Amino acid sequence: MAAKSDIRPGEVAIALPPAFDARVYFIGRIRTPFKRREDCPRSTAASDAIGRVELDPRFVAGLKDLELYSHAFLLYWMDEARRDLIQQVPAHLGHPRGTFALRSPVRPNPVALAAVEILGFEEAGMVVRNVDCVDGTPLVDIKPYFASTDSFPGATRP
Amino acid sequence: MAAKSDIRPGEVAIALPPAFDARVYFIGRIRTPFKRREDCPRSTAASDAIGRVELDPRFVAGLKDLELYSHAFLLYWMDEARRDLIQQVPAHLGHPRGTFALRSPVRPNPVALAAVEILGFEEAGMVVRNVDCVDGTPLVDIKPYFASTDSFPGATRP
Repeated sequence: MAAKSDIRPGEVAIALPPAFDARVYFIGRIRTPFKRREDCPRSTAASDAIGRVELDPRFVAGLKDLELYSHAFLLYWMDEARRDLIQQVPAHLGHPRGTFALRSPVRPNPVALAAVEILGFEEAGMVVRNVDCVDGTPLVDIKPYFASTDSFPGATRP
Repeated sequence: MAAKSDIRPGEVAIALPPAFDARVYFIGRIRTPFKRREDCPRSTAASDAIGRVELDPRFVAGLKDLELYSHAFLLYWMDEARRDLIQQVPAHLGHPRGTFALRSPVRPNPVALAAVEILGFEEAGMVVRNVDCVDGTPLVDIKPYFASTDSFPGATRP
C-alpha cells in the first residue's frame, strides 16, 4: 500500500466531507492464499484461487439457504486504502481516470465487490472460488447472485 | 418500513456487535420516480425506470471516463432498514431464509447493490436505467461493470 503522501502526476486528491454519515460492522473475514497485497491477482478474473469466508458466530445463521445459489457477491472493506483520491493514474493505463470508473480500492468508501462461485459450506462460513483480496480482509456483506438482475454478458468496456 | 418491533413468526433477531468497525460517507443521492417504499418495484429486473444519480459536487470529478462503460454498479444505503434480523420470512416465500441468502434491505450492513445501464451524464451526475430504490436514497459508491468478472449468465438460483 502506498503511503498517504504518495500521489502520481495527474492524480487528484479532494477534501473529504467533515463528518461520516453511517457506520459499518465487520461481519467476518475472508481467508485467502494471498498474505500481502503485492501477492494478490489484479482481479477475480485473474484468479481461480479458493478462499474461505469466516463469519463472526453471531451472523452464521444468516447463511441458511445460500446453498441454493451457485454464486454470491462478497462486499469487503479495503481498510488500508486512502479515501481522498478522486482521479487516479493506474499503472496499466498511464493517464488519469475517475475513481468511479475504476475498481481500485482507493475510493471515498473502500467497499470492494466480488462475484464468487460457492463451493461449499463449513461450520462458520463457506468456501468460494475467485478470490482476489489479501488474507484477513474484513467482510461487510454476502448477497446471493441473481443472473436476472446481475448478469450483463454484453456489457461493454474500453 | 415495518417498525423495529415487528417480527414475523420464524424470523430471528440477534444482538448486534457492541461497536462499529468502519464509517461511510454518503457521496450523493439516487433520484427515482418512487416516492415511497411501497411504490418501489421488487427488483431492478422488475423495473425499467429511469433514475438520476446526483453526486455531491466534491465527488463529480470521479466520473471521468465512466462513459466508456455501458453498465455500472450502484451501492446505496438503505437507511430505514433494521439491522438485527439474521433470518427473515419474505412474504413471497412464507418460511425463514438467511439474511445472506436474500437481497432484502434488512441486513447487518444495509448496503444495497444494483447493476444499472448508463444512459448519459449531467453536470453533477448521470442518468441510469433499472432503478428500484426510493427517491433520495443515499449513494455509497459507483463502480464500472466488467462482464469478465461480474457476469455469470449461468448462475443458478432456487
